[in-house]
Amino acid sequence: MARVVVDVMLKPEILDPQGQAVQRALPRLGFQGIADVRQGKRFELELEGPVDEAALAEIHKMAETFLANTVIEDFTVRVEDAGDGER
Amino acid sequence: MARVVVDVMLKPEILDPQGQAVQRALPRLGFQGIADVRQGKRFELELEGPVDEAALAEIHKMAETFLANTVIEDFTVRVEDAGDGER
Repeated sequence: MARVVVDVMLKPEILDPQGQAVQRALPRLGFQGIADVRQGKRFELELEGPVDEAALAEIHKMAETFLANTVIEDFTVRVEDAGDGER
Repeated sequence: MARVVVDVMLKPEILDPQGQAVQRALPRLGFQGIADVRQGKRFELELEGPVDEAALAEIHKMAETFLANTVIEDFTVRVEDAGDGER
């Protein structure tokens, strides 16, 4: 089954309190050298059919209207192998 | 500045109510053909220094102890170009 990943992140100009909280906690926990942290969402969609242009256009529309709030968030859509051995 | 991305997702055997809520909403909104949705977190870390093995080991430790709850979540660490034109 094909997997499509939609990443949703706050736009760079939008304040990210979640990311800031993480960033501020890091030195306390002994982690140095991180200049900035942004936190966002990752959606993994398993498609029933093939990942063709029509399916990707549909997912793009879905991300735009439903998964992301495009006033304050940016999103990216990318295809990933379902059998990804990365994890 | 170098960017490292940490993706945190619930383990496959753990119930994901957020993802299920998204999946159930899709047909109502006119989107068909999505068999499964999983929702997770994406952290973008901007490093002050270079992304060498020591930095990645540090980030791996950070993800393991702080960003992810490894009892119920899996994570991946990967390097990304900060000037990524994908978005």
